[in-house]
Amino acid sequence: MRTFYNTNFADAFRTCMPLPKVLDPHFEEALRHVLDNPGSLVRPRLVFQVATAYGLDPASARGLAIALEYFHTASLLFDDLPCMDNASERRGVPCAHVAFGDAGAILVALALINRAYALSWRAAANSAQPLQSRALDYIEQCLGVEGLLNGQSLDLHYATLPHNRETTEKIARGKTVSLIRLSLVLPAMLGGAAEREIQLLERIALYWGLGYQMVDDLKDVLESAAEAGKTVARDLALDRPNVASAMGIPAAVERLVRFIHLGDRTLRRLLQSRPELSFLQKLRGDLEQELLRVTGNACAAPLGESK
Amino acid sequence: MRTFYNTNFADAFRTCMPLPKVLDPHFEEALRHVLDNPGSLVRPRLVFQVATAYGLDPASARGLAIALEYFHTASLLFDDLPCMDNASERRGVPCAHVAFGDAGAILVALALINRAYALSWRAAANSAQPLQSRALDYIEQCLGVEGLLNGQSLDLHYATLPHNRETTEKIARGKTVSLIRLSLVLPAMLGGAAEREIQLLERIALYWGLGYQMVDDLKDVLESAAEAGKTVARDLALDRPNVASAMGIPAAVERLVRFIHLGDRTLRRLLQSRPELSFLQKLRGDLEQELLRVTGNACAAPLGESK
Repeated sequence: MRTFYNTNFADAFRTCMPLPKVLDPHFEEALRHVLDNPGSLVRPRLVFQVATAYGLDPASARGLAIALEYFHTASLLFDDLPCMDNASERRGVPCAHVAFGDAGAILVALALINRAYALSWRAAANSAQPLQSRALDYIEQCLGVEGLLNGQSLDLHYATLPHNRETTEKIARGKTVSLIRLSLVLPAMLGGAAEREIQLLERIALYWGLGYQMVDDLKDVLESAAEAGKTVARDLALDRPNVASAMGIPAAVERLVRFIHLGDRTLRRLLQSRPELSFLQKLRGDLEQELLRVTGNACAAPLGESK
Repeated sequence: MRTFYNTNFADAFRTCMPLPKVLDPHFEEALRHVLDNPGSLVRPRLVFQVATAYGLDPASARGLAIALEYFHTASLLFDDLPCMDNASERRGVPCAHVAFGDAGAILVALALINRAYALSWRAAANSAQPLQSRALDYIEQCLGVEGLLNGQSLDLHYATLPHNRETTEKIARGKTVSLIRLSLVLPAMLGGAAEREIQLLERIALYWGLGYQMVDDLKDVLESAAEAGKTVARDLALDRPNVASAMGIPAAVERLVRFIHLGDRTLRRLLQSRPELSFLQKLRGDLEQELLRVTGNACAAPLGESK
């Protein structure tokens, strides 16, 4: 067990957003509601590991890890609003907009975003100037109109788009892959990774990002089918993008298995030059486990074929 | 007429946000709606002037000017949402949330914010490292939980707060003064202004920021009173913060005149060391003109007393 596993990310998630004394008590309550209920924190752990593997000092690695988790959390706060997904619960508690109103949730999300940019440039400030510029441009690209925001807009207008694999994957590239790219590529970029490694990490982010989204989509279709009295999956009922609905379950599973294999091949090449990134195999393993769980082991055989 | 007046800020406002080909057409339409309808652009002109007076190169000055206008525009997009001020028109056209839905308006605002941070750090990248850090920290402070966002939260909860001068000025400090501080102080900071000049600019931002908010509040009270058939001002009707309602019109006018005089005194001290900032007198003149217009010249005499 390496020392970075001991970093308490739940503490860091809470304390990396200092709340000043002047704060409006309503605002403070809403902020605490979100800061006291972190998710699984898989993402900041991953960012921290990649960053330290690429030689970032622990303080910068931790700052970057929390910055990306704040961006992610802000995207969930917006996603959950009635004008978007209209969710009612998140991370086991009522959504911020349910507890504090839409305006309250929006202000918390904006506070997280403002803090995340500040943590990002502070983490970047210790790298050489060209690496800084490239990394900060990359954040803009992944989060902005070429990345996350475009994915979210396509998602919102899914009803008007062709319901096929191309559309659902375009949305997943924008929404899911963009944030995984930030988690895997950005810390490597700031650590001065070689161009070839950045390209390999980009491909891994694409395969796994699409893969995780597919598992989610399969779960929506397969688990709802298994539930008694439920005749239609949630995504289908709400006309939301779902690659398993769009291309059919067998084709989706086949495609996901292919992504896992492509990811394996890419990861092997990466580990040849960077064996210290072997912890990434856990992420791949989690994806496989999820797939097996969701499909009831139906695809154990093809998964074993990886070469 | 100096050359910077020739910078076409309406063009810059539109073109500093490149729209990629992959963009969702709905998103593009909403972005164009906002980018094609800039406000008066007083703010970016001011930022550009302060920045060039402090020696920033024109490209950085222009980038910073548009960045701050994007932050400002994003704050208006959020402000106009039904869950906040529920406005229907902005800059002579329907609000983005009216034309493109709440989600559409939110995504445009987030795109502007993402771009504004990127433009800010690019403008900062040409300054020395300590100036960069200080400037980027200052952006975080003015926009975040100590500044704009806290002001907005207090504004939203005004109904639950004491309706007095202290509360309304606290809100104005958060919402109005924070953005004027960014416009006046941030470019000076990046240009390496002396500590004393930064302090004088901070005070001018405070006096004028509160002053402009007071003129707005007086306008709301006095103009609605002048309109036939209208018995109550809009802010009062909606229980929104208004310093003129909170402390009475005569006391508010007196306080505003005092802010103008304090601003004059501070500006004179600043111009002793930085005569090239004399263009700031126009902003002071505009504030006086507005006050005279709103009060029907009732306070021309006390204004002339400035010493």
